[in-house]
Formats: sequence, structure tokens, C-alpha cells
Amino acid sequence: MTVVLAIGPYSERDISGLKSAFDPIFLDTPSQMHELDASERSKIKALAFKGHTSFGVNEIAMLPNLNLIANFGVGYDAIDISAANERNIKVTNTPNVLNDDVADLAVAMLLMQVREMAQASEWAHSGNWKTAGEYRLNRKFSGGRAGIVGLGRIGREIANRLAAFKMDIHYYARTEKETPGWTYHSDVTSLAAAVDYLIVAVVGGPDTINFVSREVIAALGPRSIIVNISRGSTIDEEAMLEALETGKIGGAALDVFLNEPNINPRFYSLPNVVVQPHQGSGTVETRDAMAALQRDNIHAFIQGSNLITPVN
Amino acid sequence: MTVVLAIGPYSERDISGLKSAFDPIFLDTPSQMHELDASERSKIKALAFKGHTSFGVNEIAMLPNLNLIANFGVGYDAIDISAANERNIKVTNTPNVLNDDVADLAVAMLLMQVREMAQASEWAHSGNWKTAGEYRLNRKFSGGRAGIVGLGRIGREIANRLAAFKMDIHYYARTEKETPGWTYHSDVTSLAAAVDYLIVAVVGGPDTINFVSREVIAALGPRSIIVNISRGSTIDEEAMLEALETGKIGGAALDVFLNEPNINPRFYSLPNVVVQPHQGSGTVETRDAMAALQRDNIHAFIQGSNLITPVN
Repeated sequence: MTVVLAIGPYSERDISGLKSAFDPIFLDTPSQMHELDASERSKIKALAFKGHTSFGVNEIAMLPNLNLIANFGVGYDAIDISAANERNIKVTNTPNVLNDDVADLAVAMLLMQVREMAQASEWAHSGNWKTAGEYRLNRKFSGGRAGIVGLGRIGREIANRLAAFKMDIHYYARTEKETPGWTYHSDVTSLAAAVDYLIVAVVGGPDTINFVSREVIAALGPRSIIVNISRGSTIDEEAMLEALETGKIGGAALDVFLNEPNINPRFYSLPNVVVQPHQGSGTVETRDAMAALQRDNIHAFIQGSNLITPVN
Repeated sequence: MTVVLAIGPYSERDISGLKSAFDPIFLDTPSQMHELDASERSKIKALAFKGHTSFGVNEIAMLPNLNLIANFGVGYDAIDISAANERNIKVTNTPNVLNDDVADLAVAMLLMQVREMAQASEWAHSGNWKTAGEYRLNRKFSGGRAGIVGLGRIGREIANRLAAFKMDIHYYARTEKETPGWTYHSDVTSLAAAVDYLIVAVVGGPDTINFVSREVIAALGPRSIIVNISRGSTIDEEAMLEALETGKIGGAALDVFLNEPNINPRFYSLPNVVVQPHQGSGTVETRDAMAALQRDNIHAFIQGSNLITPVN
């Protein structure tokens, strides 16, 4: 029987699914591999990986017979793909099944930010509605100009939803895509200058570090809102914090951050930022689908069939 | 010059717009009409009305030469239309210009409720994300079954938005409407039994009191969510509170309540309720458009032209 190692913060449901499928060895983090002796480690052929702690050259070196890393999640930026390639290790992810949830949360966070819903709720709960009258007027959402950074699977789902809010859709992608009349920008700075809402939906990893750069942020205006559901690394976070703190941009709605969950505490002090704890794909239905796809990739590997969603 | 009376909690912008157009007498509430003497009151021909305090037979009797009530808002349930009709007083409202905002807030509140965004935000802010890990999984939004109660202008805007979230759209209306394949229910209880999310978008007023009755609420299931952006009066509030408190329904997302802003405090104790302080149309852009439409109706009346948006 193929020995499977499972690393990450799995839920009870995920653990039970993995147990009945593969009876794997479970570890919370890659660093705990030191607790396994060399002979145990050498038996491991497949890794069910979950989480955002780095799995790089050193970690791969600890599993000399590893042939598969099945990642739980669409973003596999925690895994060093070059290092995996050098060892001919196949990597899989769980795309598509989470597109709806992540797009839903992107739109939801933007609505919550623009319509100041947390503040309006607090206004009612605190008694101000009763004693001081209406909550202050905020800002019309429908009909705005939305800029999608990265028109991949998730970016397109976001754009489709925002189009139903009568938004004028602009997007950046490496090449122009077939769209229902959306405006293509070959340059992210030009995109930022054209829109009210900049929604970041590029993949993470080394190629997109600070993709939304200080310069891009400077092209936004004082009423602009940044939404990020990709990875904290895709935005120059220091430049964004400065712009938020000085009113150079209007606000942000963020599900992802550098150094999660130890995020920069300055985000928590900003009234114009909606913070969500990286819960884009965090629904029972979608996490079950992601877990099933991770297991299906491991099954395919064990049976010698084609991997379902390989990334390398 | 036609003497105009303006009653209601107008914003600075609205006051300034009304002043330069008509130089009206301003009062905060209908009860303050007692402060005007009979000769002043008899000169008043047009009323710019805003708010939710009742304007009925007795109030109308205080203005013997009133010919127009121009309501600020689409819902004119505070105004006794029969009493106005008996005196041949024309009533206007401000439809359409607020459809987008109200529909936006309906979708936003439902997203916030289903994805538990207030709780997830609190999880991050409180430090739990850092110390206790991920926020709990919630529930997939896209692909659900939505039931719109009242497929008028606002109801249709809500349905169009939810369709972009791949929802299966059901609706109740007095008669079947032309739709892109949405499912018609001639009965609200049948609608409630068929859906996950019941969104109330009927007009307020005497004809729709407790339209979402105890029986309709009983037809919903333990995962159902009620959204209300119409009027507090359209739902049997006591039955809804009981269902929320006992888990017979899953939650609610409410912008409108009985006795606003002195709403039933039980709503504030329920973790499964998103409360907004009646801010559906509360954006700068839309309130400006509503104010302009109210003024345009008064202008039309003064000039003897056809009223733009009459309701009787």
C-alpha cells in the first residue's frame, strides 16, 4: 500500500475522509517531519498538503521517495515547484471547485465596504439609530467601474457577478480575452487609473510578488477601493497601508494578507478596511469538494492513472 | 408664489435644494404643524414629505388648501392615500432612482449573513484567527434557490443580481410575469417551501401587513434565510423572531423593522441576524436623485404640468 503523509490544518471531516481513503500519517506542519525517522520518511510516496507554510527544497529533501504533492487549494505558492520538478515530483491542486465561493466573497467584501455595512450595523446596535437618527449616506455600488487584475477562472466569475450590478468591466490579463465587451488593459497601472474598484485575482507565487505595486496604487484615486482575494504577496502591502492611512485611496476589502494569520495590525486600526480571515473558499460545500478532488488526485496517482488537475 | 411646506428629517443637501427651489417652511415632524397658525397653514398648497411618521386624515385636515404631497421615497405607506383622494390631493413618490441601491443592499445583506462576514471579521479583529486558527466554515452562496416576494421594479433588480450568482430564481407576484425562465408561484407559502432564501420586496401599506405570515414562515426550513428591504409591516415580526430564536429558520438580513428606529431589541441579541438601519437607498447619489425627483414633481405641480411620478 502506498504510504501517504498528510500535512496541514485539516478539519475533522477532511481527516476522516483521508483516513478512510489512505490511512495517512498526519502532521500539523512541515517542521514536524523531523519527528519521523528516516526509514518512515523514505516510505512516503504521496503528500496531501494543506496550508500556507513553505514546502521547499529542504522539506522535499526529507522525503526521498516522494512522487506526488496533492495540494488542498487552488493556490500552490507555498510549494516550490522548481524543486519539485527537479525531483520529478508531480504537483496537483484543486481548481474550479472554489471559484464561486471566492468570487462571492470578493463581491460581498466590496459591497460591505462601499455600503459601510459593518459601520451601519454598529450604528444600529449601539443605539445611535434610535437617538441620533439615520446612518450617514454612503456610496452607490451599482454602475461603478470595476477593474479585474487577472481574468482567470476566478477573475471571470467576479466580473460576471459585477456585470449584473451594471458595472463597467475593465480587466488586465497577459493577453486580451474573449469577453462580452469588457475593456482590456495590457498594463495594470492603466487599469488602476481607469476604475473605482480594483479587484486582485492573479495567482500568487514568485512571479506576482508586489504585482499591484506602489506605482499601481498611486494611479488609484481617493475614492478607489482595493479588493484582494488572491494572496497577500500580490500587493505591495506597505504602499497600500500608507495609501489607506493617508486617504490616497478610499478603502480596501481584504481576505488575504502577508504573514497570515499574524497580519500587520495596522489593518485592524483602519475604519476603511474590511478584513476577512482568508475564508474565500471557506464553505462546507466547497471544502468538501476540494478535499474530494485532493483525494481523487492521490487515488489517480496510486492507480497510475492520469492526474486530474496537475500543475506541473 | 406657491407656499410649500417641507416635513421630515432632511439632510443639509436636501434642505439647500428645497430652499433654493421653493423657500419652504421646514418642520421636523407632522406634529409640529400645531406650531403654525391657521392662516399660515391655509396658504400651504404643496407638501414635500419625508419620513415614516404617519400622515393621515388628521394631518391632512390641518392643511385645508393642500393639493400635492410629494413624498421623498418610493414607499408612501406613511401617507393615507384614501384620505388624500377624498380631498383630491395628488401624491407623488420617487420610484426607480433607488432600485439599484435597494437591490444592492438586499444582495449584500444576504451575502453577509450566509458567509457570516461580521462574525469572521470579529474572529480576525479579536485575535482568534492568530491564536485559534481558521474561522469556522460557513455556507455556499452561489447556486442557491432564491424566492422573491414581489417581482416589481426592485424585486426584478434583486433577481437579476442573484441570477448572476447562478441562483435558481423563484418568485411570487399577483400575476405571472415575463422572465428568463424563473419559476412562478401564485402563493407565497408555496414559494417559501421551495427556496433557501426568501427576499421580501412587496410594497408596504395596509394591503401587505403580515404578508409574510406565520404560516409562510413555518413553510421555510431550518436553513432558510429571510431578507427584508420593503417595510417592517410586510412580515409577521413576532413569528419571525420566534422562528429565529428557536432555530426554525436559519437567519435573517433586515433593513426594515416595525417601529423604526425603536425596533424590537430582540433583533440585536440574535447572532443569526444582519441588522441594517434602513439604509437601502442611503447613498449620496441616490438620495440626490430622489430629492431632485421630489422637487421636479413639485415644480410640475406649480407649473400645472403633468406630475412625473404620481401614485394616485
